[in-house]
Amino acid sequence: MTDVADPLHEAHKRRRTGGRAGNKRRGGPVIEQMPWRLPVNIDRPTEPLTEEGVVRLDNACMRILEEIGIEFLHPEAVEILKRAGCTVNGENVRMGRDFVREMVAKAPSTFTLTPRNPDRTLTIGGNTILFGNVSSPPNYYDLEIGKKVSGTREQCANLLKLTQYFNCIHFAGGYPVEPCDVHASVRHLDVLFDKLTLSDKVMHAYSLGKERVEDVMEMVRIAGGLTHEEFDATPRMYTNINSTSPLKHDYPMMDGWMRMARRGQGLVVTPFTLAGAMAPVTMAGAVAQSLAEGVAAVVLAQVINPGVPCVIGTFTSNVDMKSGAPAFGTPEYMRATQMTGQMARFYDLPMRSSGVCAANVPDGQAMWETEHSLWAAIQSGTNMVYHAAGWLEGGLIASPEKFIMDCEVLQQLQRYMEPEICDVSDDALAVDTIREVGPNGHFFGVQHTQDRYETAFYQPFLSDWKNFEGWEAAGALWTPERAHVMFKRIIEEFEAPQMDAGIREELESFVARRKREGGAPTDF
Amino acid sequence: MTDVADPLHEAHKRRRTGGRAGNKRRGGPVIEQMPWRLPVNIDRPTEPLTEEGVVRLDNACMRILEEIGIEFLHPEAVEILKRAGCTVNGENVRMGRDFVREMVAKAPSTFTLTPRNPDRTLTIGGNTILFGNVSSPPNYYDLEIGKKVSGTREQCANLLKLTQYFNCIHFAGGYPVEPCDVHASVRHLDVLFDKLTLSDKVMHAYSLGKERVEDVMEMVRIAGGLTHEEFDATPRMYTNINSTSPLKHDYPMMDGWMRMARRGQGLVVTPFTLAGAMAPVTMAGAVAQSLAEGVAAVVLAQVINPGVPCVIGTFTSNVDMKSGAPAFGTPEYMRATQMTGQMARFYDLPMRSSGVCAANVPDGQAMWETEHSLWAAIQSGTNMVYHAAGWLEGGLIASPEKFIMDCEVLQQLQRYMEPEICDVSDDALAVDTIREVGPNGHFFGVQHTQDRYETAFYQPFLSDWKNFEGWEAAGALWTPERAHVMFKRIIEEFEAPQMDAGIREELESFVARRKREGGAPTDF
Repeated sequence: MTDVADPLHEAHKRRRTGGRAGNKRRGGPVIEQMPWRLPVNIDRPTEPLTEEGVVRLDNACMRILEEIGIEFLHPEAVEILKRAGCTVNGENVRMGRDFVREMVAKAPSTFTLTPRNPDRTLTIGGNTILFGNVSSPPNYYDLEIGKKVSGTREQCANLLKLTQYFNCIHFAGGYPVEPCDVHASVRHLDVLFDKLTLSDKVMHAYSLGKERVEDVMEMVRIAGGLTHEEFDATPRMYTNINSTSPLKHDYPMMDGWMRMARRGQGLVVTPFTLAGAMAPVTMAGAVAQSLAEGVAAVVLAQVINPGVPCVIGTFTSNVDMKSGAPAFGTPEYMRATQMTGQMARFYDLPMRSSGVCAANVPDGQAMWETEHSLWAAIQSGTNMVYHAAGWLEGGLIASPEKFIMDCEVLQQLQRYMEPEICDVSDDALAVDTIREVGPNGHFFGVQHTQDRYETAFYQPFLSDWKNFEGWEAAGALWTPERAHVMFKRIIEEFEAPQMDAGIREELESFVARRKREGGAPTDF
Repeated sequence: MTDVADPLHEAHKRRRTGGRAGNKRRGGPVIEQMPWRLPVNIDRPTEPLTEEGVVRLDNACMRILEEIGIEFLHPEAVEILKRAGCTVNGENVRMGRDFVREMVAKAPSTFTLTPRNPDRTLTIGGNTILFGNVSSPPNYYDLEIGKKVSGTREQCANLLKLTQYFNCIHFAGGYPVEPCDVHASVRHLDVLFDKLTLSDKVMHAYSLGKERVEDVMEMVRIAGGLTHEEFDATPRMYTNINSTSPLKHDYPMMDGWMRMARRGQGLVVTPFTLAGAMAPVTMAGAVAQSLAEGVAAVVLAQVINPGVPCVIGTFTSNVDMKSGAPAFGTPEYMRATQMTGQMARFYDLPMRSSGVCAANVPDGQAMWETEHSLWAAIQSGTNMVYHAAGWLEGGLIASPEKFIMDCEVLQQLQRYMEPEICDVSDDALAVDTIREVGPNGHFFGVQHTQDRYETAFYQPFLSDWKNFEGWEAAGALWTPERAHVMFKRIIEEFEAPQMDAGIREELESFVARRKREGGAPTDF
């Protein structure tokens, strides 16, 4: 074995003995970031399927729905679909393609989600691409702890602070880490209280039984200062459900889906179809199955409440055939996401994908895998990018350093989408400036540069563009170390968004009452 | 400052005390890699410019050539262009667009480069995308040394071994690190001897004065066992020149360019137009200037030897306006590369771009910046990707760990380009298998999976897809540490490609003679 030098360790030593890396004077913001915006993806999607390929994939999806059917482990869902004309056999529901197309066509191609702060309203669909935080890892890892640990409410709150802090994060997903120190029966109450008080962005409810969904809808309504009618009038929040692949929708997910559908809230369905495990080993087969499972849920929602907004999600990836472990950001993952994008446009539904990786620590592998999944999101025309900040170990670990590294990448991708970069006006083509500077000058000092240099280029907050010597002098910090320093500073200086004192009290008493009542059953 | 835990350090301790991470039994290959191939980029390019935008950018390029002119600091080049009808004023040469178009049209849109091993012949142009090693960093960094040091011949040879070892590296660029322990007058002789004996892939010659270019051409000819006529009959090697932006081609570069043009070898011209420094602060302006400088060299080559293969390169990026340092893999870099791709197709010339970053160590930033430049290469329809493995610190450092990390990414991108992933045959859509498995089964065991699982998915050699506990048990190595272990093993077990003993002797005596003669002058 090689005796390898240890740059991270050296850097730590320096920092412990008085280095000043990452220090900024108090009083200013921790970082300068890009303003809040809804980025518009101006790139033409990457389309690996021909038109005929799209037709063939649609046909496979429709054959699954018509000939094989989807199991709905929820009697009411089965009953509703039966009344709508589907062929029911126990829990198995088959539906004809004409009916499917008719129902899917009722879902809007674009809709809005309006959180308690209307300035944070999101448009889902079209060419808009929006990013959310990592959702649902049971574990947490940061450089200070240095190992994988069960998530806590404090860690969850800290990640929620990052969710609120970064303008490139548009919506709050599920819990950014599971607060395992809070009993599952009341966890949703505590976390939603934290989410709604620490953030004013769009909220998510887990579809895990009646009580959780109803409680979260009620808390979002209270936080928004809304009447029930106002809450129902337009989507205020959303849920994301996963099918139990292959070919099944379970009770709690369906229950939440139907409750949210009735109240006109946002609905995202994301089958988790790992090719070779819960779906065929071939990517087109895995995508076909994923589409069938997703479309079946969309049909149910449209029967219940025609026009309710639905998003088709993809989580199709492959397993490591040596270990059976899921892999993310793979070449197969990318193509599956792109194929799903083609089909989402074919069905005219907004689409969700993810910013994911298999790596266990926030290193190079984590970033190339995450880059691959983010580029797949852009290439596929994805509208909602889940898990876009903070995800490690195939979703089993949340990492604040990874969160901040991802936000640096997300800002760069947002800048990438600004059409001004490719301005070809006479001013931008700058022939006169090239003439002015000539073969022996340089462009630093000329008016054309002076007029533009402050805004001409993306300015990173985490990337270190100094040369090696400058980087060494600043502490020789590797990227996750710089992110760690930044994480501590952001948490330290975090200021929660404004909330009316009366609303906060109403939320507190709602949580207290529901806790007295026992919260939610935990036998799901 | 935070007292941060130190995973890299912990991992090292474990390894020093007997961990077995990265160990493989002797006798087998160090890694299983994808076979040698010329990848075909099946994606439609990303085109930020409209058709009108292309016309406007072309017009700006042509106005620079017509109205402003390019300085050729080489009297013979000026004379040749004057005779061809250009307007000459001292060293300044202006050329009309009709003449430019006529000359550029003589360059082939596709050509081959045939090295000493004809199995390694490359096709440059069309949809083929090929990758080369990092070129020309003066410094070296690896985890064992743990700091930035001047390059040596041994480090250079080790990086050449990686160049030969990895099937995803198609051509040898310039020196993968400058061997600063070899005198500049004979450096080209020693390194070319190393290159030609350690590798049988396509070779590059620096255009740094007559002697270097002529020596390298002669050595490539000898290594190939070719007569002079055979050498001249088809391109065997290539050079890459940079203009001295703004608007200048210097003597040694032009001298090499013209010598190689006369002998029909491959010619790549890559202006280094940092927006805001050597080019306008606006990306379209920087691209227009880069194109004008590149096209001017192509015109000269076509006047000298009509039909000689020329590649238009881009190295347009932006500077950090705070420090003036160059930045790579930025959003602006990506769009400049894509715009250049549109223009290369407009001029029907093959294109070169790069796999580059500003990061100083092989960490997350290094990989997201490199990913951005590699995706820009794919999106732009680039044919030759320079610096695709091993580049750090804006090209000032070569890193073997980064080399190996990059090769993992390159393999994944090669796999991404395999159209089989998106097969939509009935077999791939697998509706019958979905029916067979049904809602309560899984796909691991079925025949459809069994028949395909060994080749269904990309298998990484460096990515670790184990879960956290498995990764910990294997030594908890971060990606660059795993790459370091692999680097040592590859060098240890490297076998040079076959070379006829007589040819090797001829090369040796050529080098000895040229050293006796003093090599090349070092006053360039």
